[in-house]
Amino acid sequence: MKATAKANTNIALIKYWGKRDEKLFLPMNGSISITLDRFYTITAVEFKRDLQKDVFLLNNQLSSEAEGQKVFRFLDIIRELSGTDLNAVITSENRVPTAAGFASSASGFAALSAAAAKALNLELSEKELSALARRGSGSACRSIYGGYVEWQKGERADGKDSVAHQLLPEDRWNISILSVMVASKQKKISSREGMKRTVETSPFYTGWLQTIDTDLQKAREAIISKDFEKLGRVVEANALKMHATMLGATPPFFYWQSGTMEVMEQVQNLREDGIPVYFTIDAGANVKVLCLPEDEQKVYEALLTLPSVKEVITCHPGAGITYL
Amino acid sequence: MKATAKANTNIALIKYWGKRDEKLFLPMNGSISITLDRFYTITAVEFKRDLQKDVFLLNNQLSSEAEGQKVFRFLDIIRELSGTDLNAVITSENRVPTAAGFASSASGFAALSAAAAKALNLELSEKELSALARRGSGSACRSIYGGYVEWQKGERADGKDSVAHQLLPEDRWNISILSVMVASKQKKISSREGMKRTVETSPFYTGWLQTIDTDLQKAREAIISKDFEKLGRVVEANALKMHATMLGATPPFFYWQSGTMEVMEQVQNLREDGIPVYFTIDAGANVKVLCLPEDEQKVYEALLTLPSVKEVITCHPGAGITYL
Repeated sequence: MKATAKANTNIALIKYWGKRDEKLFLPMNGSISITLDRFYTITAVEFKRDLQKDVFLLNNQLSSEAEGQKVFRFLDIIRELSGTDLNAVITSENRVPTAAGFASSASGFAALSAAAAKALNLELSEKELSALARRGSGSACRSIYGGYVEWQKGERADGKDSVAHQLLPEDRWNISILSVMVASKQKKISSREGMKRTVETSPFYTGWLQTIDTDLQKAREAIISKDFEKLGRVVEANALKMHATMLGATPPFFYWQSGTMEVMEQVQNLREDGIPVYFTIDAGANVKVLCLPEDEQKVYEALLTLPSVKEVITCHPGAGITYL
Repeated sequence: MKATAKANTNIALIKYWGKRDEKLFLPMNGSISITLDRFYTITAVEFKRDLQKDVFLLNNQLSSEAEGQKVFRFLDIIRELSGTDLNAVITSENRVPTAAGFASSASGFAALSAAAAKALNLELSEKELSALARRGSGSACRSIYGGYVEWQKGERADGKDSVAHQLLPEDRWNISILSVMVASKQKKISSREGMKRTVETSPFYTGWLQTIDTDLQKAREAIISKDFEKLGRVVEANALKMHATMLGATPPFFYWQSGTMEVMEQVQNLREDGIPVYFTIDAGANVKVLCLPEDEQKVYEALLTLPSVKEVITCHPGAGITYL
């Protein structure tokens, strides 16, 4: 009745942007990500008789009511699957710097799904585990797998085909992902709210959907053939498109800040100097910079010279779910 | 055979972005602008017998070959209209700081059209003059009129209905337009090239066109009713949409730099403090900030505190063509 799992977070190369079902976390479009080696969540779940309520300990602290509710409601889905009504103690160690603009919910719900399913002996396939994790947080379905991962949007209303699969294992292609933290104010619009407003009001959302299959295809091909420049070009263009859709929303909004722009400019400068380096940006001010391992040091130093850059953490492709 | 005219430059509130005819400068969409009081071109044109070639003196210097060619080819259009084959001496004093991101071509071709037409006694109506100026540079057609001006895109293939008209004279509504120059590198993509690439490749261009009539309508209503906040909201949203379309182009491009973003953030801060203030951005890194005259000093000071801001020049609505 007890199990412990570790899941790494992931960074989207082709972005998940917009839900077609808010409740089941079904996306409007497919996405592709890299599971990273440095930011993770380790979660232990123990179902217990005579436990009156679920208990959630996050980084050795009793969680807030709001954090707890998300987790407990997610456990309800798993309890329904297994037919149990036992409560659980969930102990999470979260090593995702939320300031870095990484969604800790991806590794969080991936680890929770894996640990809870194992504790209840559910014997889920990886695909089933991926679909389950998705119901906690969309991008969590990708963190089940290591390396390069694609989340197919699926067609079914129940979401059973909206699951991830691995495109290439982490040890087959090493690239460097530099997570660049810039001086910035707190973001005012959550990504959940941002995608909702975009889907509902932006005249550019149709254009986003129209080009996503081509972007997915290019990224897939680039990953399979390990063509870094091809991958970088489509990754950067896709991120710019995602951010463009928000600029058309009513009211418009944007996550970029002056430090974001500084990093984008520096990446362009480095590229003009002949270094293959590209950026991507999620729903926040920070930037993730992709380069080849042989250029990692040079790129790292060039980023640290920028006045707005506070910290740069270098990651590489990492593993999927592991049980401890 | 000689005449001198002065034209002010203008700043687009609802942007001209995309041509449907490259040669006749026919736009894909209508636009609305304010003619400004501080940046202008004064041009004298004298047609002379026995002059072997056109001569163009810009700010007391013989112009470059490229600048000259644009002007001489434009004079050919006027010569054809009037049936003359005389060459001319064109003397221009250009007081548009190109570093401010204002298109000196707007005031330049407006002044040139007016002076040349008068020198040849063409007796053009303002509409005809507007259509003529448009053939030198699209936005020049708006600088014929003072104050708040709309350029109707028109439907005809010959462009005769693609002309501007005045919505509200300059002395009927005074607002402040602060031209903010930020530290920036030279822009790499001309607006002409930028709009062409956007029209041809951006999946967002359709969304731009779909919402332009609503934006024009809102801006028109706001100007007629002198509703500053209504005007500001649509102006800012329209500028963001124009810049969004470029982010979707192949390859993507953008004019914003870190200083641009700094000013955008500061405008949002001021607004959160209760000051009605809005920005607009053309095809460059600089920002134009709109506010009410009573807030001008406060806004000016808040902008000058920003590290990237090099200079702020305050303008107000100005006159159309005047003959000297």
